[in-house]
Amino acid sequence: MELDTGLPSVRQVQTAIKDGKEIELKLVTGDLVTGKVKWQDPHCICVMDHYEQPTIVWRHSIAFLKPKA
Amino acid sequence: MELDTGLPSVRQVQTAIKDGKEIELKLVTGDLVTGKVKWQDPHCICVMDHYEQPTIVWRHSIAFLKPKA
Amino acid sequence: MELDTGLPSVRQVQTAIKDGKEIELKLVTGDLVTGKVKWQDPHCICVMDHYEQPTIVWRHSIAFLKPKA
Amino acid sequence: MELDTGLPSVRQVQTAIKDGKEIELKLVTGDLVTGKVKWQDPHCICVMDHYEQPTIVWRHSIAFLKPKA
Amino acid sequence: MELDTGLPSVRQVQTAIKDGKEIELKLVTGDLVTGKVKWQDPHCICVMDHYEQPTIVWRHSIAFLKPKA
Amino acid sequence: MELDTGLPSVRQVQTAIKDGKEIELKLVTGDLVTGKVKWQDPHCICVMDHYEQPTIVWRHSIAFLKPKA
Repeated sequence: MELDTGLPSVRQVQTAIKDGKEIELKLVTGDLVTGKVKWQDPHCICVMDHYEQPTIVWRHSIAFLKPKA
Repeated sequence: MELDTGLPSVRQVQTAIKDGKEIELKLVTGDLVTGKVKWQDPHCICVMDHYEQPTIVWRHSIAFLKPKA
Repeated sequence: MELDTGLPSVRQVQTAIKDGKEIELKLVTGDLVTGKVKWQDPHCICVMDHYEQPTIVWRHSIAFLKPKA
Repeated sequence: MELDTGLPSVRQVQTAIKDGKEIELKLVTGDLVTGKVKWQDPHCICVMDHYEQPTIVWRHSIAFLKPKA
Repeated sequence: MELDTGLPSVRQVQTAIKDGKEIELKLVTGDLVTGKVKWQDPHCICVMDHYEQPTIVWRHSIAFLKPKA
Repeated sequence: MELDTGLPSVRQVQTAIKDGKEIELKLVTGDLVTGKVKWQDPHCICVMDHYEQPTIVWRHSIAFLKPKA
């Protein structure tokens, strides 16, 4: 399984990684994960918080992604 | 994985994009995301709010889509 | 991906479309969507309410379908 | 997609259909659907209540199945 | 679809069946199902309680499995 | 189905196993499972608590993974 970098959803996460902009991930648990995206793969998206602690979020648990307000 | 544009569900989202009509997405989290649909791909649907802020919604978290009341 | 019209679950939704009978869809969100089924495809089932407003329901969010009480 | 009738989970639902015994389905919504199983296909299991009203339950929403207490 | 008996998760359930040890299944509904594992297949795990009543649990609804405390 | 050890999400769990560092798994049920990762396979991740009791967590129920705070 590979990420299709031709898809807008994959590209926009890739852009977030390059630009280092902060984003918000709302999860199906109701949790809000905020920070900078470090990497993505077909299963997960990794977000770094202000303390450089990584949170590896499974895609199946993501409801939506927004630029940080 | 590609979107099958012959399917009614894909076509109706495509029509919403072209027409610029506002829609509501009810998510499995209970969140309601409203705005205009900007794009769709096999994983996600992107909705723009009134401040031109995008919300990238994962399809697996969508319960239903309606025209905005 | 195509709908297998030989399956009872697909045929019964097809019958609901032809007969124009009202049904209830209970969703995993707890929402109850009621009305007449307009169409189905592999991803979604579309339900029309009394005001002819469509609700496009993703199959992954459906818990059960019943004839309207 | 076909049901593999060699699998215990498929066979036990098949036995429930033949024997006409009442079962309980607990759904991920918390709903409890009880009655006799009428049919199963790869997507759904259909349960008839005491008033001969069918409830078509999507498999993805089933948490567990038990003989009725 | 077959169970890959080379995987640790499949083997450990197989061991629980052979050893007849009690386990706990925590489900995404919050339900806790406890008892001895009778069988597993690619869709389900069957747990017998103290009254020899079976509960057929769909794998998609399992959060985790532990030895009974 | 095999684990693709080239993916960052798989490698980072593999690193957690080798390093014996404590992690937190937040589940879609809201449960928090903490301990050391013992193994992973395509379906599950196994976490050992302080009493050397294993919890086998299904991947589909994982929201996110973090180093233990």
